[in-house]
Amino acid sequence: MGNFADVLIDEGKRKNSVLVVGLDPDINFFPDVLLENVDTSSNESIANAIYEFNKIIIDAVANHVIAVKPQLAYYEVYGSYGIKALEKTISYARSKELIVINDAKRGDIGSTSTAYARAFLGNGTISGDMVTVNPFLGSDGYMPFIDVAKEHNKGLFILLKTSNPSSYEIQDLKLENGKLLYFKMAEQIEELASKTVGINNYSFIGAVVGATYPEEAQKIRKTLPHSIFLVPGFGIQGGKAEDLGVFFDENGIGALISSSRGVIFSYMNQNEDWKKTTETDMCRHITEAAIKAKEQINEVRFNKVI
Amino acid sequence: MGNFADVLIDEGKRKNSVLVVGLDPDINFFPDVLLENVDTSSNESIANAIYEFNKIIIDAVANHVIAVKPQLAYYEVYGSYGIKALEKTISYARSKELIVINDAKRGDIGSTSTAYARAFLGNGTISGDMVTVNPFLGSDGYMPFIDVAKEHNKGLFILLKTSNPSSYEIQDLKLENGKLLYFKMAEQIEELASKTVGINNYSFIGAVVGATYPEEAQKIRKTLPHSIFLVPGFGIQGGKAEDLGVFFDENGIGALISSSRGVIFSYMNQNEDWKKTTETDMCRHITEAAIKAKEQINEVRFNKVI
Repeated sequence: MGNFADVLIDEGKRKNSVLVVGLDPDINFFPDVLLENVDTSSNESIANAIYEFNKIIIDAVANHVIAVKPQLAYYEVYGSYGIKALEKTISYARSKELIVINDAKRGDIGSTSTAYARAFLGNGTISGDMVTVNPFLGSDGYMPFIDVAKEHNKGLFILLKTSNPSSYEIQDLKLENGKLLYFKMAEQIEELASKTVGINNYSFIGAVVGATYPEEAQKIRKTLPHSIFLVPGFGIQGGKAEDLGVFFDENGIGALISSSRGVIFSYMNQNEDWKKTTETDMCRHITEAAIKAKEQINEVRFNKVI
Repeated sequence: MGNFADVLIDEGKRKNSVLVVGLDPDINFFPDVLLENVDTSSNESIANAIYEFNKIIIDAVANHVIAVKPQLAYYEVYGSYGIKALEKTISYARSKELIVINDAKRGDIGSTSTAYARAFLGNGTISGDMVTVNPFLGSDGYMPFIDVAKEHNKGLFILLKTSNPSSYEIQDLKLENGKLLYFKMAEQIEELASKTVGINNYSFIGAVVGATYPEEAQKIRKTLPHSIFLVPGFGIQGGKAEDLGVFFDENGIGALISSSRGVIFSYMNQNEDWKKTTETDMCRHITEAAIKAKEQINEVRFNKVI
């Protein structure tokens, strides 16, 4: 029986893309044209600008990416109006047949995780198709996400080895038996993933593995063959295209590569006067950046040396 | 110079209470009277009922608790209307001179954590006085919360040993050097806390230590003498009053004890027909439960055997 990993794989084939674009709408990087009539002391006004920005991004990338990944913090900071912008963004992305991955990194005690899981994977207004989950509270913190994902035929990505510089501090701790913490966790996730595979032999229980750590990814790929990886950190954060091969299986599937600032703010690289960028120029730069990233990734995932 | 730990300590003395009440508004546990005119298919309608519920709780406990602790999941599940209810709840709690601790358990890569920190500790509509922070991404995930807290003279609690049954899975992992993970983290937090103490020798960088783990708490208290503990899990989750002594210092300060369901749904214990509870009876039961919890805690914290 098919699961959400099959949806990801089918969509990836249909679009010939495993690129995910992060929707991190930092208004400091918006061109003037989007801020012209914005009252920056009003959450409502800013939230409207965020939705306009996201619509431009979604239109620019929809044919070239498999999913969009709203980063919750950038919406929460504007309170209920920010969440309203998120709701509208999710609806708009779905109308363009995009998968929505809420990058929320939630995780709590069981009863609270169930509420979070319903918020992000249920039928609610901020529910997408997948969510990122923080495992620090242990299995009773992430099992509710797995249960709700299963119920709604959706999916999740558990944080395993994150892309940021200090991720080693906890995730790479060496345990009594000589194993690193992320490796032990990978074994635990594999226990669950191997029992929940779909048609393509992948589970709806995925893992976050940063593009900035290809050596670690190579080990995790072998330990966790039934999980799709969500791979942030490609581009601005330092993850290089040529290092991405290890994240994929021998068929060039099994990972989604996420880029945020490198795509959505690509017009900033074009000239010093980026604040004057027009909407059409924004759209063009963003489309070009998405196509380039997609092609770089495809080059590596299909020509990888096993 | 005073910091937010001093505010907590002063408020605790003024009210003779270190009790925190969690605002986890699960509508399944609301009495009929609060749901009479509610359309359960409408987020807006449910969110209004949640705000009414929270107002009753706040009125019932304001004289007996130091802070309220909204649990974000229960608001997010109703999307932007849920967050609107949170905003109104925070305003109402502040109008009653209560400290607001957002139990959000956020944590992300640096730039995103900065956005979360501004959302919860800045001047925004969902900003309270303190926030709970998940340290799984390492120091560049939690430092932005410390920076923003410092800037706004607010505070945070970093998850260290959570109250849930499976918290041992990651938090109690034994490291190469024989230390447990939470213990190593406690040492790291102490590095930061010892350098940021206020008048009472406590830092605004606190830690979450579950009431269900008094043995662990005793060790953490010694290792981390400059952090206030936020102690969830008292009551329904299994944490016992007689075990709480170890969470406090020799002066009976240094910890806030949090109870959620045991107080806010206390009318459910009164009889099988709790659905018929009136608003005044709700209020009475909740007030009584808060006073009882406060007194149980005071008994232990002031009469502890050192």
